Order: sequence, then structure tokens, then C-alpha cells
Amino acid sequence: MRATVMHGAGDVRIETVPDARLIEPTDALVVVTRAAICGSDLWPYKSMEPDEAGRRMGHEFIGIVEAVGAEVRTLKAGDLVVAPFAWSDGTCEFCRAGLHTSCLHGGWWGGTELDGGQGEAVRVPQADGTLVVLPVGRDDALMPSLLTLADVMATGHHAALTARVGPGKIAAVVGDGAVGLCGVIAARRLGAEQIILLGRHPDRIALARQFGATDVVSERGEAAVERVRALTGGLGAHAVLECVGLDEAIATAVGITRPGGAIGRVGVPQGMTLPAEPTFYDNITIAGGPAPARAYIEGLLPDVLEGRIEPGRVFDWTGGLEQVPNGYRAMNERTAIKALIAF
Amino acid sequence: MRATVMHGAGDVRIETVPDARLIEPTDALVVVTRAAICGSDLWPYKSMEPDEAGRRMGHEFIGIVEAVGAEVRTLKAGDLVVAPFAWSDGTCEFCRAGLHTSCLHGGWWGGTELDGGQGEAVRVPQADGTLVVLPVGRDDALMPSLLTLADVMATGHHAALTARVGPGKIAAVVGDGAVGLCGVIAARRLGAEQIILLGRHPDRIALARQFGATDVVSERGEAAVERVRALTGGLGAHAVLECVGLDEAIATAVGITRPGGAIGRVGVPQGMTLPAEPTFYDNITIAGGPAPARAYIEGLLPDVLEGRIEPGRVFDWTGGLEQVPNGYRAMNERTAIKALIAF
Repeated sequence: MRATVMHGAGDVRIETVPDARLIEPTDALVVVTRAAICGSDLWPYKSMEPDEAGRRMGHEFIGIVEAVGAEVRTLKAGDLVVAPFAWSDGTCEFCRAGLHTSCLHGGWWGGTELDGGQGEAVRVPQADGTLVVLPVGRDDALMPSLLTLADVMATGHHAALTARVGPGKIAAVVGDGAVGLCGVIAARRLGAEQIILLGRHPDRIALARQFGATDVVSERGEAAVERVRALTGGLGAHAVLECVGLDEAIATAVGITRPGGAIGRVGVPQGMTLPAEPTFYDNITIAGGPAPARAYIEGLLPDVLEGRIEPGRVFDWTGGLEQVPNGYRAMNERTAIKALIAF
Repeated sequence: MRATVMHGAGDVRIETVPDARLIEPTDALVVVTRAAICGSDLWPYKSMEPDEAGRRMGHEFIGIVEAVGAEVRTLKAGDLVVAPFAWSDGTCEFCRAGLHTSCLHGGWWGGTELDGGQGEAVRVPQADGTLVVLPVGRDDALMPSLLTLADVMATGHHAALTARVGPGKIAAVVGDGAVGLCGVIAARRLGAEQIILLGRHPDRIALARQFGATDVVSERGEAAVERVRALTGGLGAHAVLECVGLDEAIATAVGITRPGGAIGRVGVPQGMTLPAEPTFYDNITIAGGPAPARAYIEGLLPDVLEGRIEPGRVFDWTGGLEQVPNGYRAMNERTAIKALIAF
């Protein structure tokens, strides 16, 4: 089958790889119908050391179950399913606590051992625990929004939840990438009264406003902090969604959080440290991490199916599997917010 | 009047200073009957640059109101009161939210502008907001435990609350100082099922066991992490109370927190940074800061008055004001856990 393999910074290739197949009795074999390129895929795209063996890519996908192992109980051939960006058994202590990304028997897609979502088919381990059946046809118009449940919409929701967004709160979102934009959706959905987006790209800002951002701050660093303070009566935001993962972003997040407030961080940390002193003296909580998307899909699904949220609008590039290298390039050059791969 | 003044590392003197007096109409003048030396007083005791003007010391005290300003409504001369370690107006947005340490019109005792608790009398700003009347006589046998409400018991409680201790949870307490010991009391009071103390001093460990610690880990660093994991089914503690403030302590705290768990940090940070990556991948929440003691005193007071908790047992050194330099020395040399000053 054909699949995406990264061999180094800027070196993404579509290659013929061994066909995905059932191995464990808890596996499902899924033929991919839609996949996506993630902002976090750009970190190795910028920095990966050359590696001829390469690394299979992709952790956001929807597909059709082609076959299931002997122990799979909740899925059957023909089901349309969405996969969260981590696989999990659904039964361990952490899954039962709703933290599927820490599943004792789970893991991550792609790499050197497993299939990735940016390919024609995927062996899905722990299929009963991992996959969620979608009650729509394979080419339903809602497909882009449904695909965001695999990662970016669930991740924006996790940022908002861990930042303790709630009715009447002031939320601020650091970063205008696809996750930040979904963070705006999530903050509005959870009842934030004021939603401040920190971003600089006109197209993304426009979309954020449609998603519910009430204010936009395009300054950087200390000027951004001053601007948010001016917008919040001098006190800062209650809930700050950190959707970048760089030192500058966390410094800004800390600077704009009011005493007693919380930062929900979902940007994959890139060699950053967390400031210990200002967060201490202001009793600022730092929370978040990889979103347990599996825990959130069922809760977000009705809002997508009934059109109350439209996170699929973050996709502004679509291509087939052979065009995936162009999708990486477009996202890396910021000419695309997020790339959808249609099979 | 006589008061404690720090002039540099290891240089604590009892000096004659200007008498405390009412200045603002919201002030109270309090004659101190009991005060304490705090573990956080040891940081400047170890590191302060020589300063002939000096710094007034002490932020934990009980005393008798001698006079009140014209606008003070809730206090009268003769009241026995306890002061939390920060003063606050009780009416601003942050006080109403229960975060009195961030009061918009509050501040800290001592230094160069205000009286400290380690002296004969204190001008108390924002007296209505700050002071809590105690329904006992000035030499009641409960005085040591009541004095801990000013700081260490409230701080242990804050660590436990922000670490999300609750019924059935596994708590771990990093640090066996007075705050760590009060953290053990707080964790038990909030229903923790297992309470692991990380400490190395036999006298403190013995007291911790009486306070409710179920396990003691005296290893350091990675060995301590391994030991806590062995005690927690390999998963780590749900709730970790960080009661030190050094890099090694926060590294240990992160290492022993299970995925999805929380660290409540109350140790004043000494040039530390917070690890960004392990906390991210394990969705570990870092919370805490200076305890809003004022918010907690009324809630903890019945448990002290009725003898359900005995945090005053952390005091194992008592002296008069002129002996305060000896109290600093004893705490710094770890021959005393915590020093009480009786006037």
C-alpha cells in the first residue's frame, strides 16, 4: 500500500510500504477515507535528522473497518470510524479516569513500528477501546469537522477544560493555528464571556472572529501582555489556552493570566521551561497536555452533527495522498492553516 | 518597642525600633502575644546581602487589639486576634474569590515599610479584612495550634487543596518541615487514603506518622521516585504536596505524580524552574502558591478548637523575643522544626 514516510527535515515521501493487516486479535484493519496533517507534524518536518528507514506519519484519520480480530466486540466490517490521535484499551485505570493518552496498554500512531494515518490503511490496535463509529456516510459533508475530533477540536477542548473556561469567564487563546482556532470554538462552547485571540494572520483572525473571538491581539511579547491587560480591566484572563508550545508562548500565557487563573497548555513543548516564580506568587495553575481525544469524541459529536460547531472550517487545503508533501510545505510556509487528505 | 531586624545572612538582631501606631483609619494596633519563625525566614537568613538599615521580620502572630482606626468596624480593643501571613482588604475581586494573597490593596508584613510579627506590636493595615478574632483567652493551651493558622497549617491545607487531595486518593508530601507536616494533617483531614511523607529527620518522621502519614520514604532523587512508585502500584500518587521550593524537590514531585495527577506547590521557589515536558506528556497539573490563609482560617478553626487537628505540635522550640536569634539558629541547623516566640 502507499503511505507517507518522513525521512528528515523537509523530506516527506509517499512510498509503497507493507500492507496493513491484522496481527493481534484486538486489532481492526481500517481503510482510510480522510486524514490530516497536524501542526505537530511540522516539528519533525523542521528538525528531523536524516533517516533512510524513515518514520510513518499521521495520527488523525477516518476510515472504514475492513476486518476485525477475533476479540473485537463493538466493531464490524463496513463501520465508518474516527480514530483519536492515541490508541487506548478503554479499560485500564487511566482510560476509566478519562485520560486515554496515558493508557497502560496504548500508544501513538506511526513511527517505526505502526501504521500512520497518512496512508491507505491502518492496523488499529485495541480497536474496541480506540475507535468511535460515526453515524454518517463516508463522504458526508460534515467529514472535515468530524475529522477534527481526532485531534484539533478535541485538543482545543482540552485546552479550554484544563484552563477552566466556564460561563462568564474571560478566556485568552495564545496561537492562531488550527488548535488555537478550535480553542476559540471550545471556549465559546463552554460559555466564556470574552474570548481574546492572540494571533497575527489575517485569514486566521477572520475565522477566529466567526468562531466567537471577541478581541484580537496581534502584538508580541510584553506589548501583547499589556494589550490583554488593557482588555481585561488590568487583571488578565481567567483562562488561558496555550496552543503553541514555545517559550515565548508560555511566557505570554503566564503574563496574561490573572492571579488564581489557569493555563491549559496543549502546544507540544519544544525545549521550553515553565516559569516557576510568577506562577507561584500569583497562584496560577498550569495544566493540560496531550488531549484524551477518545474521552471527548462522544461529547463533541452531537455538536458537530447538529452543526452547532464547525471546526472543519480550519481545513483550507485539500489534496490526495500523493500531494501530501505539498500539504506539509503549505502548512510549513503558513500558506495553509491545515491540510485535509481525501482518499 | 523591641523587634526583630535582619541585617544580612546569619545576622538577626533584636533592636529598639519606633513604636507601632495607628496611621490609616483602617488600621488596628495589635500587641503581639505569640509569634513564630518561618522556614521561609531562613531563605534570607542564608543569603541576604549585608544591609545596615535591615529588614523587619515575622509574618505569623497572634495578639491583642490595643486600638483601632476610625473606620474599623469588626474589631475592638481587647480582642484576641490571629493575623494571616498577608494582609488584605477582604472586599476586592481577589479577596471575594478567596485569593487574599493577591488582594488589590493588600501586602506582606515586615520589610522596610511595615512592622513584622516578630516584635512587640504591629500596625495592621486593612484590619477588618485581615484579622480574625479568636474565641479563647490569651494564654489558652491551644495557642501553638492557633498560631499555625497564620501560615503553616493554612499553607499545608493550600498544598493539599491545590494538589486535589480527596477521599480515597493517594497523597505524597515532599518535605518534612513544619509545612510538610501540616500538609500531612491536611491530606488526612481531606480524606486521603494513603499519605506518603518524603523526609529524612527521625523526629519529624515520628510526628508525621502521628499526624497520619502511612508511609515514609527517606531516599533522595531517583531512588525516592522508585520507592514511591513501588508504594503506589507503579503508578505514582494522585496528589503531591511540594513543601520545599528547590529544583530537586519539584523534580521529585513530578517524578512521583501519576498521569493526570496534580502538584500543589507551596515551597517558596528558590531559583527553580518547572519541568515542561514530563508534566505535559503525563497531563500533570502544577498548582499552588502562597496560601490565602485568610480564606482558610475560619474553616480550620473549629478543628483546632475541638482538638481534631494539632498542628501546634510542630513547635519544638520556645523562647522570648530576646532569644529569637537563637531560634533562627536552631531552625537553620535543623535542631528545631519550628520556633514559637512567647511574649
